[in-house]
Amino acid sequence: MPLSGFRILDLTRIISGPFCTSLLADMGADVIKIEAPGEGDPVRQQGVIREGISWYFANYNRNKKSVTLDLYSDEGKAVLRQLIAQCDVVVENYRPGVMEKMGLGDEQLKALRPDIIHCSINGFGTTGPYRDRPAFDFIAQAMSGFMSLNGGEHEPPMRAGPPISDLVAGMNGALGIVAALLRRERTGQGDSVSVSLLGSMIGLLSFQASNYFANGKLPARTGNDHGIASPYGLFETADGQVAIAPSNDVIYHKLLDALELPALRADPRYQTNADRMQHRAAIAADIQARTRQHTSAHWIERLNQFGVPCGQVLNLQEVFEDPQVQDQRMAIDVPHGEHGAVRMLGFPIKFSQAPTQAVAAAPALGADTERVLRQFGFAEQDIHGLQERGVI
Amino acid sequence: MPLSGFRILDLTRIISGPFCTSLLADMGADVIKIEAPGEGDPVRQQGVIREGISWYFANYNRNKKSVTLDLYSDEGKAVLRQLIAQCDVVVENYRPGVMEKMGLGDEQLKALRPDIIHCSINGFGTTGPYRDRPAFDFIAQAMSGFMSLNGGEHEPPMRAGPPISDLVAGMNGALGIVAALLRRERTGQGDSVSVSLLGSMIGLLSFQASNYFANGKLPARTGNDHGIASPYGLFETADGQVAIAPSNDVIYHKLLDALELPALRADPRYQTNADRMQHRAAIAADIQARTRQHTSAHWIERLNQFGVPCGQVLNLQEVFEDPQVQDQRMAIDVPHGEHGAVRMLGFPIKFSQAPTQAVAAAPALGADTERVLRQFGFAEQDIHGLQERGVI
Repeated sequence: MPLSGFRILDLTRIISGPFCTSLLADMGADVIKIEAPGEGDPVRQQGVIREGISWYFANYNRNKKSVTLDLYSDEGKAVLRQLIAQCDVVVENYRPGVMEKMGLGDEQLKALRPDIIHCSINGFGTTGPYRDRPAFDFIAQAMSGFMSLNGGEHEPPMRAGPPISDLVAGMNGALGIVAALLRRERTGQGDSVSVSLLGSMIGLLSFQASNYFANGKLPARTGNDHGIASPYGLFETADGQVAIAPSNDVIYHKLLDALELPALRADPRYQTNADRMQHRAAIAADIQARTRQHTSAHWIERLNQFGVPCGQVLNLQEVFEDPQVQDQRMAIDVPHGEHGAVRMLGFPIKFSQAPTQAVAAAPALGADTERVLRQFGFAEQDIHGLQERGVI
Repeated sequence: MPLSGFRILDLTRIISGPFCTSLLADMGADVIKIEAPGEGDPVRQQGVIREGISWYFANYNRNKKSVTLDLYSDEGKAVLRQLIAQCDVVVENYRPGVMEKMGLGDEQLKALRPDIIHCSINGFGTTGPYRDRPAFDFIAQAMSGFMSLNGGEHEPPMRAGPPISDLVAGMNGALGIVAALLRRERTGQGDSVSVSLLGSMIGLLSFQASNYFANGKLPARTGNDHGIASPYGLFETADGQVAIAPSNDVIYHKLLDALELPALRADPRYQTNADRMQHRAAIAADIQARTRQHTSAHWIERLNQFGVPCGQVLNLQEVFEDPQVQDQRMAIDVPHGEHGAVRMLGFPIKFSQAPTQAVAAAPALGADTERVLRQFGFAEQDIHGLQERGVI
């Protein structure tokens, strides 16, 4: 696998960091998750629990090892330093400054391992007036401008359903880590990488930001209408709705052919995209009068035949029953010991030569503590001492 | 920079692929963008055009070189093959099968360069019943289940404002490419990587998917309310709204302290998160009665002092005037020759030792054709011949 042979020390919890390290683990890295003795990652208790297992935790912590370690104790910190010295990467999603307080600032990390790669996943950045603020997905969605673009034209700004600022920050963290590892292969040098929830969300503002920069006009929320293309959106059919998205004039004309609406081609209101934007409600009504005459399945087959991008709005049941989603293995069943199989999301990056696979279930709390410590050179009697003193 | 010294041949257009290669270019890769003579990437004509420059194009194509090449001609394809033989990576966002039709299937790419890394960014995957369907951001948002989770409880399923399926697929493409390059450093082997808009969006379904897998219940859209936490959401103040997100009981009690609402602590309706979920409207009203008494700025300062995640919903103007966003350089001004500076989004991954920077503006169409061909070993007379025959 692409990251086989790399060791990641994972101090993260909740979602942004664990998602980051799950991407690395899925690609073959040896991820050692450090958890507080007795409690562990709070996500172990979150989401729907089935037979004692949080399936949410199971999803984001597969392929990892769990080592318990009391980082409030000096002895625990000493063990941590010994582990770091033998790892390629340290990832954490503490608030900025916490690593320094633990005696693990960048210089100290470098002293432990000169070519270490450190990744901080944080709310707002490691510098700046808000660096010490507590962070949360919803807040980053609000402060990034993302919410100002999400939602219906006459509705309030809307948070995205999934916790996308956590997720996108996790993806940026993984990309930064792998890029730093690649540089290390060629230069021998480590690095310190920071990604924030806020910056990651701003990184998604796309053409709405570019247009705003260019003309100073605040983009409106457009709901399911496209800001710069018409027709576009959800259209009612005989038994539901289809999403239709003709991206340019060529595809617009294919749409008219597929719908057998040649009269619209000559309609003076609909000659250019700019014309159609001006008459958006009218052209949507004309198209919907036609789409209502057949089922969604009919239109999806026919529009795709004509090369017009279209599809149904699916709920999660329909998504995971969909033959394409099954072909792409975007839901996988991972055996979980006596708990049976746990269903989780598949991995979206498909490598031909080095395919990833979920080989191991998420670990029970501390399941790998002794084995990992032995592997890192701790003696049996030291391990027992740490156990007796409640450090591990 | 992390990717200095790596050459990327970029056959992509529109947004998913150009976003992917802009991430690589921002990290220092030498990205050679192949464009059709005379037209180029359609995004050159899209978005707000200022002094002849699309700022949308400028954003996603900075730090790249532009080489024009007619890929419909045999001679153009021959030139392309010569370029590929000297590149580390080929990225494309054609529909699956197009590369094979161009004589550039995986085996042929490998014949040109045994350790080549090929990345396909596509709509639905390179296999499966929908592989040949035309793709578009909106359709992937609809078919992935994302829209079924986005929007208000009593509103229809809602597309996210930004084209996030394009963007997340681009990020997955970049991660897959860098991971494959890292593996190549250690094994000498190339790979073929595929990421789809659909799979990338499904990869974001997060705890909503895990919960659905665990209990079979379809998650509801919850708008700005959190599905599993209360209080949570937007609360009115004397002059606007604040987003407040206490993630657990400890922070809920900090919120009550910050609001000076000790009575709520004893209220039997509000003892546990489960209790508060049952009385979500009542507790929201109690909190809002208090937040209305002061301004948003007052509450944001005070809640942050108490460690409660909070923030305002900002529009794009407010975002880019925000001191934290400026500290993090999430808007940058890149000199664009005689066109003055173009403002664009900053890079969200911050490397300490190998910082990225937007050093070069997006190229004019074909600006680098001759220079790149010379650099790749083409003779002057061959270049002139290609020019005369309209191949470049």
